[in-house]
Amino acid sequence: MDLTMSSIEDHIQNWQPGLSIDCVIMGYANHELHVLLLKWKNSDRWSLPGGFIEKEEDLDDAALRILSERTGVTLPTLHQFHTFGGRQRRDPDDVLEVLSSLELKNPVVENWLMQRFVSVGYLSLINMNTSHPKADFLSDRCEWILLRDVPELIFDHNEMIEKALEFLRIRLRYLPVGRSLLPQKFTMKDLQRLYETILNKSLDRANFQKSFLKLNVLVRHEKQMLGGAHKAPFLYSFDKVRYDEYMKRGLGFTLS
Amino acid sequence: MDLTMSSIEDHIQNWQPGLSIDCVIMGYANHELHVLLLKWKNSDRWSLPGGFIEKEEDLDDAALRILSERTGVTLPTLHQFHTFGGRQRRDPDDVLEVLSSLELKNPVVENWLMQRFVSVGYLSLINMNTSHPKADFLSDRCEWILLRDVPELIFDHNEMIEKALEFLRIRLRYLPVGRSLLPQKFTMKDLQRLYETILNKSLDRANFQKSFLKLNVLVRHEKQMLGGAHKAPFLYSFDKVRYDEYMKRGLGFTLS
Repeated sequence: MDLTMSSIEDHIQNWQPGLSIDCVIMGYANHELHVLLLKWKNSDRWSLPGGFIEKEEDLDDAALRILSERTGVTLPTLHQFHTFGGRQRRDPDDVLEVLSSLELKNPVVENWLMQRFVSVGYLSLINMNTSHPKADFLSDRCEWILLRDVPELIFDHNEMIEKALEFLRIRLRYLPVGRSLLPQKFTMKDLQRLYETILNKSLDRANFQKSFLKLNVLVRHEKQMLGGAHKAPFLYSFDKVRYDEYMKRGLGFTLS
Repeated sequence: MDLTMSSIEDHIQNWQPGLSIDCVIMGYANHELHVLLLKWKNSDRWSLPGGFIEKEEDLDDAALRILSERTGVTLPTLHQFHTFGGRQRRDPDDVLEVLSSLELKNPVVENWLMQRFVSVGYLSLINMNTSHPKADFLSDRCEWILLRDVPELIFDHNEMIEKALEFLRIRLRYLPVGRSLLPQKFTMKDLQRLYETILNKSLDRANFQKSFLKLNVLVRHEKQMLGGAHKAPFLYSFDKVRYDEYMKRGLGFTLS
């Protein structure tokens, strides 16, 4: 169920007070990371997708529900990366701007939005091609924005994206990343560009290839000998069993 | 300021509703990990130290305050490792047991404690020798308990300790660990036992030494040639500059 402006007052009593969820939903296309953003109605301000938690709803389920409502994508799990609890994290001017953009003036809704919120950040990496972005009742646009073009967002939402990236960069050090972002078959160059994009730096081609092949997590596919195909680069896919093993035991500093 | 039973009602209006903090405070001594636990008044139930967040207080500051109130230890920062938000995470029988152990019957306090709580978990690793455990107003004991002797705790607190350990084990893969747990000088065996204790498994001595020396993060001290000291093992300490570098850039899968 998606909220409407007229139903929000009824919902307020069913929500956990002072607690919200914000979702950093990342997608990868054309060798670029994108993040899903909403533009508010009657305003040129952008924000992360987010929402509130029903009193009878698990926190993780609320995050999955918000992802599904905004993108149509259903995932088994998301990465809870940080809880944001600075007491000044929501600029009061931003809250007043939301309130002035609401068509319905309502003191219950105003009180709800003016309270202090602690917000739990969730990261998801999804395939952009299978997503169907959909605005919520507070917004009139919901779009994939290039990570490097993200504008100034409301509240601490830019900081949330930074923190989500930091989480993802640390994750690269001890777990394989890529299965949910790359097509099933990809070149070594595709893989390197994904890592370079996430790390925001160039990597040495030979070292990257050596490090990755050493993990033994890639399956190399035979070239199909059609036309000039022998000049084409090799295609790889992830070895599902090895990938899952690494997801369990990690890639990192192994002490052995 | 530490709470008292009679002041709790006054505080309730100043706290964020439905939100708590629980602290997994770990100490290391005699090659064993310990965790700081509280035993409730008039009950044989144990729990993690925790508390509530003032409406005018940053979440991280609240966690540092709780650590300081329970241990006398002041740290610059703690590790926020997970936020626990299952709607059934607090067994109602456990809540009733707290309530029945309270000396003051008070409907405001009862309502407060009966609401749904989402709890933010913080991990700290501290030197047990410099800590002064102190019970809170709900408990009559506050003690370091051997990790392997932790009893069944209230709510989801055993799960919190498991999750904190998982966080710490992952952290070992990409960051050095030990400076806050080991004495300034230590043997290679001390270091290995710390890692073995955290990972809860044996490590090969030669591989451990090789992996660690390769990091170049240890300073080896000359043996003092007194009596039989030449038979004593080498003492090491952490190279502060290299340690801090690794804290910034990580130890993990480096792709180079």
